[in-house]
Amino acid sequence: MKLTGTLIYLLPLSAILTLTACGPSASRGETQETEMKTKTAIEVIHERSSIRSYTDEPVTREQLEILVRAGMAAPSATNKQPWQFVVVDDKETLHALGADLPTSRMVQGAPAAIIVCGDLELAADGWLQQYWIQDCSAVSQNILLAITDLGLGGVWTSVYPAENRMEIVSGILGLPEHIVPLNIIPVGHPAAEATPMEKWDPAKVHWNQW
Amino acid sequence: MKLTGTLIYLLPLSAILTLTACGPSASRGETQETEMKTKTAIEVIHERSSIRSYTDEPVTREQLEILVRAGMAAPSATNKQPWQFVVVDDKETLHALGADLPTSRMVQGAPAAIIVCGDLELAADGWLQQYWIQDCSAVSQNILLAITDLGLGGVWTSVYPAENRMEIVSGILGLPEHIVPLNIIPVGHPAAEATPMEKWDPAKVHWNQW
Repeated sequence: MKLTGTLIYLLPLSAILTLTACGPSASRGETQETEMKTKTAIEVIHERSSIRSYTDEPVTREQLEILVRAGMAAPSATNKQPWQFVVVDDKETLHALGADLPTSRMVQGAPAAIIVCGDLELAADGWLQQYWIQDCSAVSQNILLAITDLGLGGVWTSVYPAENRMEIVSGILGLPEHIVPLNIIPVGHPAAEATPMEKWDPAKVHWNQW
Repeated sequence: MKLTGTLIYLLPLSAILTLTACGPSASRGETQETEMKTKTAIEVIHERSSIRSYTDEPVTREQLEILVRAGMAAPSATNKQPWQFVVVDDKETLHALGADLPTSRMVQGAPAAIIVCGDLELAADGWLQQYWIQDCSAVSQNILLAITDLGLGGVWTSVYPAENRMEIVSGILGLPEHIVPLNIIPVGHPAAEATPMEKWDPAKVHWNQW
């Protein structure tokens, strides 16, 4: 096995593979490059950042469905899957949401948005009902990661538990009583390159005991 | 470079890479295939499932740190990062947690577990404090996906908001008052192959309006 003149970068955790394939030209020193790069899930987790401005390029319904499918793959307490999704790509609705919600202003400039909602009728009864918050948060993180994986950008803009925001969203989208909007995730093509924030803090890791 | 007929399996992060590079045969026009398979984040999202039984093989502290680092890459409301982690690989502590918590019984058979906690002192004040639940849920989903990406298995076993479970976990791990355990995620090498649950339900997707 000869790897002469070839560089193979194997970055575990960042499995970036640059393959310099060979062939007749390689023997003449004209390197032919076949570059392939598939990001691992862990790389995408670290690459994700909150993207708040977008180009005019639309996001397709196929892409939006990929995102919602990723959301629905989340785990849920006692497998209740207590979630619903409103996917908005209508400009007027996007504008209305962004205009009425200062914390979601960037939705006005996005080609689409996903509103992740808890469904209290699908949720378990009694004190278990509140697990919809944890479940739908896991859903939301899946969506954010899928957005990053598709090369798109998005940001989790919070709705629940702010009563006024919940009312505004419910009003604009016509949500029934038992549907609680957790957040609005605008989705679009990033207007600029993003630098993920470094949040690693070893002081927050406690081995075996506090 | 001659890799003809050679299979190189690189399984860092479960990235299966099949490399068939070229050699003299390429110059004879026999097309050589360069096949690479690294799972995308979206694939890992769909592959993840709740793994409740594990082999005796240990999980290294390096792997556990990769998981916690992935957790800390999650977004948080107003960037408070209100989280702390207790990482347990001590057999006695794992046994105590699993023995006292029927819903986390499988922790007894795991080589390690991560307890994702909210830190109420790091969280924002007033009504914003409760965002630690959403933030730490996003953290937990990152950890579950990173577990899957490493070829390991785990499951989100709930602690908060069950008061009795919170007390038991706090007692065993010596958590101070302001540290609230959200869940226990046992981690290990899967004892059997898992089939992810199909949860896609197009009836839960509402376009532009409910």
